[in-house]
This record gives sequence, C-alpha cells and structure tokens, in this order.
Amino acid sequence: MARDYIHFTNNATQKLPADNLLIGSIRTMASDSYVTDSAASASAYSCGLKTYNGAIGVDDDVMPCGTVLEAAKDQGFKTGLVVTSRITHATPASYVAHIWDRDEEAEIALQEIGYTHPFGPQVDILMGGGRCFFMPQSSEGSCRKDNINVLKIAKSYGYSVFSDKEGFKKKHKLPYLGLFTLDHMSYSIDRDPKKEPSLTEMALKALDDLYAATKYSEKGFFIMIEASRIDHAGHANDATGHLHDILEYNNAILAITKWIDKHTDSPTLMISTADHECGGLTVGDNYMWLPDALTKSKSSSEAVAVTWSSYTGPNPDSFLQSLFNKYGVLTPTSTQLAAAKAAKADPKVSNFVFSKALAELLLVNFATLGHTAADVSLLGYGVGYEQFRGHHDNTEVAGFVTRTLNLDLAKITKRLAKEKKWIEQRVKAKEGTKIKRGGREHLAHHH
Amino acid sequence: MARDYIHFTNNATQKLPADNLLIGSIRTMASDSYVTDSAASASAYSCGLKTYNGAIGVDDDVMPCGTVLEAAKDQGFKTGLVVTSRITHATPASYVAHIWDRDEEAEIALQEIGYTHPFGPQVDILMGGGRCFFMPQSSEGSCRKDNINVLKIAKSYGYSVFSDKEGFKKKHKLPYLGLFTLDHMSYSIDRDPKKEPSLTEMALKALDDLYAATKYSEKGFFIMIEASRIDHAGHANDATGHLHDILEYNNAILAITKWIDKHTDSPTLMISTADHECGGLTVGDNYMWLPDALTKSKSSSEAVAVTWSSYTGPNPDSFLQSLFNKYGVLTPTSTQLAAAKAAKADPKVSNFVFSKALAELLLVNFATLGHTAADVSLLGYGVGYEQFRGHHDNTEVAGFVTRTLNLDLAKITKRLAKEKKWIEQRVKAKEGTKIKRGGREHLAHHH
Repeated sequence: MARDYIHFTNNATQKLPADNLLIGSIRTMASDSYVTDSAASASAYSCGLKTYNGAIGVDDDVMPCGTVLEAAKDQGFKTGLVVTSRITHATPASYVAHIWDRDEEAEIALQEIGYTHPFGPQVDILMGGGRCFFMPQSSEGSCRKDNINVLKIAKSYGYSVFSDKEGFKKKHKLPYLGLFTLDHMSYSIDRDPKKEPSLTEMALKALDDLYAATKYSEKGFFIMIEASRIDHAGHANDATGHLHDILEYNNAILAITKWIDKHTDSPTLMISTADHECGGLTVGDNYMWLPDALTKSKSSSEAVAVTWSSYTGPNPDSFLQSLFNKYGVLTPTSTQLAAAKAAKADPKVSNFVFSKALAELLLVNFATLGHTAADVSLLGYGVGYEQFRGHHDNTEVAGFVTRTLNLDLAKITKRLAKEKKWIEQRVKAKEGTKIKRGGREHLAHHH
Repeated sequence: MARDYIHFTNNATQKLPADNLLIGSIRTMASDSYVTDSAASASAYSCGLKTYNGAIGVDDDVMPCGTVLEAAKDQGFKTGLVVTSRITHATPASYVAHIWDRDEEAEIALQEIGYTHPFGPQVDILMGGGRCFFMPQSSEGSCRKDNINVLKIAKSYGYSVFSDKEGFKKKHKLPYLGLFTLDHMSYSIDRDPKKEPSLTEMALKALDDLYAATKYSEKGFFIMIEASRIDHAGHANDATGHLHDILEYNNAILAITKWIDKHTDSPTLMISTADHECGGLTVGDNYMWLPDALTKSKSSSEAVAVTWSSYTGPNPDSFLQSLFNKYGVLTPTSTQLAAAKAAKADPKVSNFVFSKALAELLLVNFATLGHTAADVSLLGYGVGYEQFRGHHDNTEVAGFVTRTLNLDLAKITKRLAKEKKWIEQRVKAKEGTKIKRGGREHLAHHH
C-alpha cells in the first residue's frame, strides 16, 4: 500500500527502503495460538522461545527467560530501547522485564529502570511514550495505582530524565530516559515536531550516543527500535495512520543503513522485522485499489475521532463534515454522518466510522480488529546479515543475535531462576488473580 | 495457513518446502491498475514489460512482445508449459500467444500449437486441462465456435496427443500435447489419480523428457510449470481447495529441487513465484484461527456445489447435510442450509454458501472475489538463483531469465512486429469489438 501510494503521488515506480533490504520472512505463532500477540512474539525475539500470548519475558511456566538485551548488558555491551508506543508496552517490555501479563505496566516500568529487576538497571537508553506509568498516582495524568515516583527512582540510579523536544535536543550522558508523552507517542501523520521527536530522530540520537559510549570499548551495543504504532493503526483499521507510520519506518531504516555505512569503525548489523501482522489488511477489490483519497487524508482516524468527541461548539454538522474531509473522505454519506453522530461520545467507536469510510473509498479491507497469522518480512543490512537469509521462526531471531554478539542467554536464565522471592512477588500472578483475556486467549494452565 | 495446518495435524513445527527456498518477493501491479490479473502479470514474466489487465503477450499498444519461451526456442532450447488450468488460460498463454484479450482462448489454442503463430510450433511439451478449446464445435463438450479440429492440426505438426492417465504413462517423443480434462484439471483434493496426473507427476515427466531431449545439446530447456488452481480457490474463497493445491505446489517444488540435485550434468535453475495474490485471504480473528475443520474437509467447495446442483433424489435435506459434512462443516446452521437450498440451481452461487461456512469455522477471511495488490513470494534453487535475491518488480523476472539463458527478447519482438497481417487478423481486436471488462478494468485507449 505504501509503495503504491508513493507510485501514485510521484507517478514513477519506486522501491521502498524496506524493499532493498528484504532477505526473508518470519513466522510468528505463539505457544497457545497460531495468532500471536506482541508479548509472545517479542519474547520469542528476546528470549528465543515460544510462549503464550500476554507473556513478557517469561516461558510457558511463567519462569523468567534471559533476553538478548540482558545478556548483552552482562557482556559489557551498552543497550537501548527506542519505541513510539508507551515504553512499558509489550514489545520493549519483553527485552528487559519479566512478568506474567503485559498489562502489568506499572510493574514493567519499575523493572525497566532496574528498581525491581534482579540485576539492577539494564537499559542505557530508554525513549518513547508512556510517562504516565512513571508518575505517582497523585500526579495529573498518572496511570499508576500507587505513589511510586518512578522518574525520581530513575534519577537516583543516574538516569537523565527528559520529556520534551528541548530535552531531546540536549546531550545527555548514559543512562537516560526520554518519555515524550503520557500515553503512546503520536502517529506520524499527527505528530507535532516541536513537541515530539520522530522515530528516525530518536533512532539516530540513540545510535550516536551508543556509538560514542562504546567507541573505546571492545564491546559494542544492542538496541531494539520499534515503529510501534503501525500495529495500532492496524487495530484501528486506519489506512492513513498505517501508511504514514510505515513511511516513517522506512525513513528510519534508510537512515540506519546510512548510519551503518558511515560508522565503519563500529561494524554494525541491523535486522528488522515485525512481531506480527495486524488488522488483516488487504489492498484491492474488483481488480483495483484507488490511492487518491489517501493523498487527501491528513490525520489518523484516532485523532479525528478524539477531536469529534470533544467538540462542544454550535455547528456540529459542519464541524463533522470538516473532520471527514480532513481524514480524506470528501463526501461522507448520510449514513456515515449519522453513525459518527451516534458515536460522538466514544471516540473508540466513532474511530471505525471514519476508518471504514476511508477504506471503502480506497478499496482496501481490514479483516479483523486483531492480529493475523501472516508471515512478516525480514530485512537485513550491515555486517553478517547474509547469514540470516530465508524463512525463519520468530524464535530463531534471538539465536541469530546471540550467535552474532556471542551471548549466553542460558546463563542469564539461570541467574534469574535463582531469584525465587522476586519471581514469586514480581513475575508470577498473585494467587487468586483473575486471568484477563481481552482479545487474547491464554490457556488457563499457564497461570 | 498450509504451514499451520501441517503443524496442527502433526503437532510439530515444520517448514514447508517453499519456506526453505524463499529468496525474496515480487511486486505484481499492471500498467492500468495496482491490482493485476494473470494475463498482465504473466506477460510481465514472459516479456519483461508492464501491460494492461487482459493482455496476452502484447504491450499497452496491443503489439506482440517476444517472450522468454520464444527466445529460448529460437536459440535451440527445448520448451514446455505444464499447468493445471486450461492450457489456454492466461498464464500459459502469455508465454507463447499474442492477443488483445485473454478470453480469446479458441485463438490462443491455435497459436499455442503453432498453427497461427508466425514462427510455427514453439512449445515441445504442453500439458494441462482445456481440451474443449482443441475440439471442433461439433464434438461434445467443445468450447469452440468453429469447426477447427486443433488436435488434428497438432498431430499434423508432429505432436503426440493424449488425454488420459494411460496416455500420460506412455513415453512420447517431443513434441507432445496432453490435455486431461475438457475444462480446468481437478483441484488436488478432488483429483482422481486414475484419471488425472498430479502437478508433481506432470512436472517430473516433463523435466525427464526435456532433459533426455537436450542431453547431447549445448542448449538446455525452458519450462513454465503452474499450480494454476490456487488462484481459482482464491476466487471461490475456498479454504480447502486452496490448502490442498498449495500443498501439491509444495510437493512439486520439492520434487523439482530433488530432480535438480540428481541431474548435475544439466545445471538447472528453478525460480518460482505467483502472478498475484487472489481472494485477499487473511488467517485469524480474535487472536486465533482454528485448523480443525480443515482436517475434516475432503472436497473443494466447487465440487460440493456442483454435486448439490445435480442432485435429484428423494432426500435433499440429508443429502445437503452430507455435502456440508464432506466439506468439513459438521453442523451447518439453518441459515446456511436455507441459503444452499435457495442457490441449488447455480453452483457458482451455492459455492459461496459452502466456502463461507467453512471460513467462519476456521476464522479465516477472504476480502474479495478477485485479486489483491499483495506482494508474492519468490523462491529460488539450483544454479545461479542467488543472483536474484531480494524484492523485484514482476518485469524483472523476465530479465533474470533472459540473462541466465543469454536470450534476446528484442530480436523476437522485432520479428513479430514484421508480421503485420497476422497482427491485424490474430492479435488486435477486430474493429468494432466491444471491449469486455468483466472484473477487469481496461483503459479504453488500449484497444
């Protein structure tokens, strides 16, 4: 869809940066479902094992598993996690936290900065959204249900902490923690560059700082960078949000390959893949799809839905029309207008009125609000990527990283297993906890 | 879907033969739509150019383009086309025929055997379905609207002609023409092995015969083998037909790689891809998909629909129930039963009652009755495949084949362009012909 959009706007065949880096594909299934969630697949990437949907850095028996990030840290590498979701979300969490359920984000924040991690701080650079889980409940906008000030603890551990573009632009010594939004960072199409850095800007800053910090070391660095909100746009069935986050992802991997080319004294491997497909997006019906409306769409469906829900002015009809227009739907039907009015109070509902209206114009289809079992693309660049060509299970990604960096995951897993009190108190579900299922299907024996 | 099905039936992770051969992906867009049909994409594969949907071996101006098969023949290679569709269908046709519209299959049959091809017979082995276009209209089951006996002409050109498994089993000198069914060959799941060879059997026979015929030649052979009916199952939104034709495709490519390994004195390159995705198939909803019903499904939806339409017995209710059961739907709903009854007369309609009922059980989704713009997988094996790794436009496939075999497509195109009378009479649409559109979107200026 993104490639055709570029073709449509430029009227020229053009490969995307991702096209030029394609080396294979990845299968994503979880241990308890052919359709994975982010937690199970990210844990496969970090620990090299199959686990259940919802699991953060734990195996099917809810025992913690050593991750490539922890093993790299143990060997003297510098480490980073850079995302556009909440930093406590499943993917980044799975590289350093260990807990039975991904929704335990208040605990994940504590493990991420090392406060309740048995080995102390593991991550030298943390950037993304999700500041709300780092603030005590007394602070406005907090998501915590306790009075722990995680930012303060992070500072006591030596983290530089910043939360805006000014802070982002400054030089900080490692470790540092940059959290630019309370919740997820903005979709690329909605981002205010004065307030939030782009994924590419964050990635390059982190690479520069990790490079500088390891310049005179025999060890280098490990970093996981995620264009997190492609997934969210899939859940929202939002073609516009999806497109522009895919384009920003392509910007980021292109910038990273150029960065690798420039830093030949620090031979670097980049591999890039997804934890899963989301939304069951297919492009085309009746032997065509029509990118035109995408070129006129200047907002995520989430943003127009939220704006609509907060409107209290005197002209809701014309305001609603302007929101459809902003989203690329120039002539909404009376049915669509009525549906958006009926759902005004709940942007999570009205979102789909907008997103479906656009998808119909484009002739693209979203089959589900969740994930699918589709294989995902594997990209590679830099030193040694050729060794990872082809189709692989997601568990094999950790093995490749482990071999490349000469890490010992089993050693970390053994050390974690010795922390029995921590496992009881921080990793496993408390006795009598009701297992949340949501869209996710856990086998009951997992808990 | 096929890989998960194997996992489900064997309870073990298993890569498919295709997984072990993955080297990249192919973009399929046509000149007049981001969503290609088989004709435009197969012409891209055969001629190396973008053309309009419906075009068979012609460019956007309906001028014939030299194909890799014709260029190989010109250089002294032996050639073959082996498919499970009608041999006159768009994909095989695009390698040797040149005509403004894919539906002109009566003319395509004549060009395929060389009768109305300016260079005479170009294909040494033709196997597949579609005998109806080779029989004069007086013969029962003919699809022709003239009295030309194409089989008889083929024989006069030296073709051995056969139409059943007995004929298939015999040794024939090249050239030969094996057409096993009037229309398309059966879906793998429906195939009677006493009547029709499998795709794998046809592929191996053709390879053996092409190998023997070129053993003492400096030139080798070019063959295009198509698992044609994966596409048809996509159009029918038929998960069962799709699955088993994908598995047979995997059997075939595995057998071909083994054949290549055994024939080291004839270094052979295999590349395999698809002309497009069909059906907008996505697998999974609500974080799962359930292969169980697929293991119980023993027929294509087309076959049960056709059987249902021809039923005239006294117990339609129990018969219909048995058809649902045969298709893997053990407890059809009253709505599904009523819909199948209402559509009894038209298997093209009742087909979707069956196929949708199964898809709902599986939690798989078909987004369209047509194709999508999805990239398709690229597989490679044998001598020199490494040179074609990565993501490519479909036009680049012809370039790779041309470079590998040292062919000259431009020379063939020039020779074809000189055949002005043939172009006027056989390639271009007749003056005043109404351009068929069907599901296909042609730009009017193309004709």
